[in-house]
Amino acid sequence: MQENTKMAKGDQTRQKIVEAAAAMFNQRGYEGASLAYLMEKTGLKKGGIYRHFTSKEELAAEAFDYNWTVARRARMEHIDPESAGVERLKQLIANFIEYRSPVPGGCPILNYAIDSDDGNPLLRERVSKALRGWTRRIESLVREAIERGEVSAGTDPKTVATLIIATLEGALMISRLDRSDDALRRAEQHLYQYIDHDLAPRSAKKPALRKEKRSR
Amino acid sequence: MQENTKMAKGDQTRQKIVEAAAAMFNQRGYEGASLAYLMEKTGLKKGGIYRHFTSKEELAAEAFDYNWTVARRARMEHIDPESAGVERLKQLIANFIEYRSPVPGGCPILNYAIDSDDGNPLLRERVSKALRGWTRRIESLVREAIERGEVSAGTDPKTVATLIIATLEGALMISRLDRSDDALRRAEQHLYQYIDHDLAPRSAKKPALRKEKRSR
Repeated sequence: MQENTKMAKGDQTRQKIVEAAAAMFNQRGYEGASLAYLMEKTGLKKGGIYRHFTSKEELAAEAFDYNWTVARRARMEHIDPESAGVERLKQLIANFIEYRSPVPGGCPILNYAIDSDDGNPLLRERVSKALRGWTRRIESLVREAIERGEVSAGTDPKTVATLIIATLEGALMISRLDRSDDALRRAEQHLYQYIDHDLAPRSAKKPALRKEKRSR
Repeated sequence: MQENTKMAKGDQTRQKIVEAAAAMFNQRGYEGASLAYLMEKTGLKKGGIYRHFTSKEELAAEAFDYNWTVARRARMEHIDPESAGVERLKQLIANFIEYRSPVPGGCPILNYAIDSDDGNPLLRERVSKALRGWTRRIESLVREAIERGEVSAGTDPKTVATLIIATLEGALMISRLDRSDDALRRAEQHLYQYIDHDLAPRSAKKPALRKEKRSR
């Protein structure tokens, strides 16, 4: 019984470290993250942190996984469970803009992509995995939309997924610099148009533009 | 005469510091950049660096300007001086992918946009200015293309510029994570299609698709 309580406390401390590290790495980057900062944020001593994490690399990887879980949840919630195909794809795009992760610092993939560029293979692998997962999610929605006849059969799901992610992440970068959602809004409208117009089967093109337009 | 030589030497040292700092900030980020690292790279002592730059903020801003000048030059060179409008727009897109800055670390705007997010107004202003300059450059090419009848009159230049930059920067981020140019190639093809198809005046749409296709 006592052993269980101890373990639970250890888990709680570990979780506290991961959460503090998640905000730290997302805001300050890998190089800018420091043990001193983490000690201040958690109120723990060096030994109390090293008991749970043996290296900065390991902690950064755990922190990224936490950040990604939270960001993905924010994007995936508020999706109508009845929706499918193109409608669901559009909800994913809208959610990227409407529902941000509560962890300060912005999209973890964008932040870590810059950061994990050089010399941190563990972190790099986690970020790549998150990006692959997100890409596959969109690819499967595109395939669903093709099966439903909403998207033309010749469409390459990988290209659509890549373009949606690139456009949103790039627009997020601009929006952060501009301190305005303007770029994200333009990206959103462009992607809806791209889906409704460029991807729609030839015969459905005109009706799709009107029918699928979302009132948001 | 001696005074002039001294000044020239001072300028040379200053330039050496800026160049070393440019690579450092672009690769390690603002928080990750350190005086110790810079001393090692330049072979200068602390006082020798502080003689030229009074603060990390000031040095980071100078380093960004240097990085942006070099990156912009790489993108603007190799543009056919005879080209105009849509053709020039496409060359700018191709150059973003073909000709990278010799400074290691990737696109300075992408790197600094993440970095200058919090608490460095001087650096932030430089990065914003660079982004505004790049946006205006593309906007003016879109206006030129409208005047030449290559792009439909109702096109909003700001939207086109925002989308081109967002798509390229987002694809660059993906390409860095993937260690492959695949995302950039898909983005490039998408942007050509967007320009040739979505932006072309209604009457010119079909011929434009064939005529404007570049053999690269």
